[in-house]
Amino acid sequence: MQQNVSIKEVRKKKPLVHCITNYVTMNDCANVLLAVGASPVMAHHPAEVAEVAEGCDALLCNLGAMEDFEAMKIAVQAAMEQGHPIVLDPVGAGGIAYRRARCAELLNVCVPTCIRGNASEIKALYAGCQTTKGVDVSSGDCDAEAEIEEAVTGLSRRLGCIVVASGAVDLISDGNGICRIREGDEMMTRITGTGCMSSALIAAFVSCAPTVEAVAAACTMMGQCGKWAADRTRTERSGTMQFRMHLIDRISLMD
Amino acid sequence: MQQNVSIKEVRKKKPLVHCITNYVTMNDCANVLLAVGASPVMAHHPAEVAEVAEGCDALLCNLGAMEDFEAMKIAVQAAMEQGHPIVLDPVGAGGIAYRRARCAELLNVCVPTCIRGNASEIKALYAGCQTTKGVDVSSGDCDAEAEIEEAVTGLSRRLGCIVVASGAVDLISDGNGICRIREGDEMMTRITGTGCMSSALIAAFVSCAPTVEAVAAACTMMGQCGKWAADRTRTERSGTMQFRMHLIDRISLMD
Amino acid sequence: MQQNVSIKEVRKKKPLVHCITNYVTMNDCANVLLAVGASPVMAHHPAEVAEVAEGCDALLCNLGAMEDFEAMKIAVQAAMEQGHPIVLDPVGAGGIAYRRARCAELLNVCVPTCIRGNASEIKALYAGCQTTKGVDVSSGDCDAEAEIEEAVTGLSRRLGCIVVASGAVDLISDGNGICRIREGDEMMTRITGTGCMSSALIAAFVSCAPTVEAVAAACTMMGQCGKWAADRTRTERSGTMQFRMHLIDRISLMD
Repeated sequence: MQQNVSIKEVRKKKPLVHCITNYVTMNDCANVLLAVGASPVMAHHPAEVAEVAEGCDALLCNLGAMEDFEAMKIAVQAAMEQGHPIVLDPVGAGGIAYRRARCAELLNVCVPTCIRGNASEIKALYAGCQTTKGVDVSSGDCDAEAEIEEAVTGLSRRLGCIVVASGAVDLISDGNGICRIREGDEMMTRITGTGCMSSALIAAFVSCAPTVEAVAAACTMMGQCGKWAADRTRTERSGTMQFRMHLIDRISLMD
Repeated sequence: MQQNVSIKEVRKKKPLVHCITNYVTMNDCANVLLAVGASPVMAHHPAEVAEVAEGCDALLCNLGAMEDFEAMKIAVQAAMEQGHPIVLDPVGAGGIAYRRARCAELLNVCVPTCIRGNASEIKALYAGCQTTKGVDVSSGDCDAEAEIEEAVTGLSRRLGCIVVASGAVDLISDGNGICRIREGDEMMTRITGTGCMSSALIAAFVSCAPTVEAVAAACTMMGQCGKWAADRTRTERSGTMQFRMHLIDRISLMD
Repeated sequence: MQQNVSIKEVRKKKPLVHCITNYVTMNDCANVLLAVGASPVMAHHPAEVAEVAEGCDALLCNLGAMEDFEAMKIAVQAAMEQGHPIVLDPVGAGGIAYRRARCAELLNVCVPTCIRGNASEIKALYAGCQTTKGVDVSSGDCDAEAEIEEAVTGLSRRLGCIVVASGAVDLISDGNGICRIREGDEMMTRITGTGCMSSALIAAFVSCAPTVEAVAAACTMMGQCGKWAADRTRTERSGTMQFRMHLIDRISLMD
């Protein structure tokens, strides 16, 4: 059995995580990485990313940042040469053909350690077609667990990497069986960035060990902190911004 | 009389709102849209925005994102072809000649459903000259209600769209008379993004009905939530960041 | 003795501060400037920054925004022609050679009023070599106060500007002696953006008087608000996001 990775390992290693990620949630991603004990570097200029990726412990590419796609390709190359884990978040691949094409282009030149998206995004990568509108999961894909399981497992086998479909139940596979994580809360869909933050946490965890257990540990922590924050938000009858605050706060207080 | 639009309609429709907006407040705009029950898509790469705008229910162009001006022109074209409502926020048009010129360029190729800015921005578009420094309203323009009324009504008639000048009193016109909304609070000027958020809410509401009533409903909700949050912030003797949190929280709790 | 600058002067002057700064923390920087009574303008398109810099009271260039480097060069030229104070924040110069080179390029064409960075960044500019990985200070540089003092004083004399190395103790020099500010709290390193916010505050203060006293006043205020917010966060057993909120809130409540 592979060694589990806990937040203790992350806090001890203090991994440098290079994020090329969308501008909407990059502040949240940086703060989540600091909360978990990692050190984020958000450099995204094509002329600097090779140097940065080379010196970091993991690379996160989030397809929400289409204007930084050239930088992603350069960074991916540098990370691969060093053998650093790469996490790919295919934001919008479910609803936007252009992003599916760019995602395929990246997957032609690298094997990420992990791909994490919502059910519609994972299904779109597996089936190679549109599955939703915009960047949120479709309601149909939320419910079709068997179908999503097939996409997660199938995509994982085809690409040879760990695949996560986040949702009410997170489905994780490295091609051998499937792991289900029933944490989290519906409130996580009512703010922007919970998916991006999950991917950032996965990058921090896989920098300690590039295993399905490390990915599962990151998803579990995100889900538990989300549930804790949602419970508190409901108890206090407060809204979505307090929820976000409690979520990241909780991560920063974990040990 | 035209049908009013309330937050119920927005929550029921769950409109996809495509925002090409500045990087300073795009996280706030995405969260405000989620708070009101809409689904934000913040795609801004020229190669993807036509596809995204086509599939969404409304388009918001915020001139704070000058680096995305080419994307705006492409998206506006796609939205017009589908007959989707377009909201234009002329951030900085009051103080920056370059933005006034780009705003005029956009208005040459489209008729938005609604233009929303502060008094200095609306006056600058109406008069075609500088009215303030930077991106905030000038103190003179805050007070000159009659003059701003003329600019709102005149610009509305000239362009054939709804025009809003936000301020202590929001002035709204579709060319026929003027609607005054006396909600809001001075504290809304002490954080960045309340104008951008108002424009995002307007985009969500006009996706349900492209009417002056829908615009007024969005402005009323923003103002009431701003007032509620400011009162709470003063009672608790807290500062501007708690104010922002309470403002968006309140929107998320409305029904 | 030079006149001191307090927050009263800033609130009275309401300076327009033009920030060309990284997308990760630009929302925080804008809100900190509003909290202190300044008016932020975050314009960063090359075609508009000359006009904006010319009309503002101070210019902040933050090297985290490498994609806006051409805009920085244009804005610096415009600010110099008007004699406006310039603040330079060399984010990442300690860990990224590309940024050190761009920083040197800027320093070839301007003398800023103030350079503010962490100890590793200031040491890297002084010694012209790599001092850390990523964008955070190295643990060695945190402790080597004598060495950092030499870098601060030496860089200040070489460039003829005020230099600040922020840290557990802020070291400030205009080439004549050194000023030590022992405020702040370790918790300021657990969120992203405290360095960027400090630089923004310095820009607001030096727009009132381009003196070492003004820089020291900005650093003192940031440190005291950071300490206050950290104490409160620990008392309430809350996390890093509440800390950030309390920090900016406190600035907004100062007088």
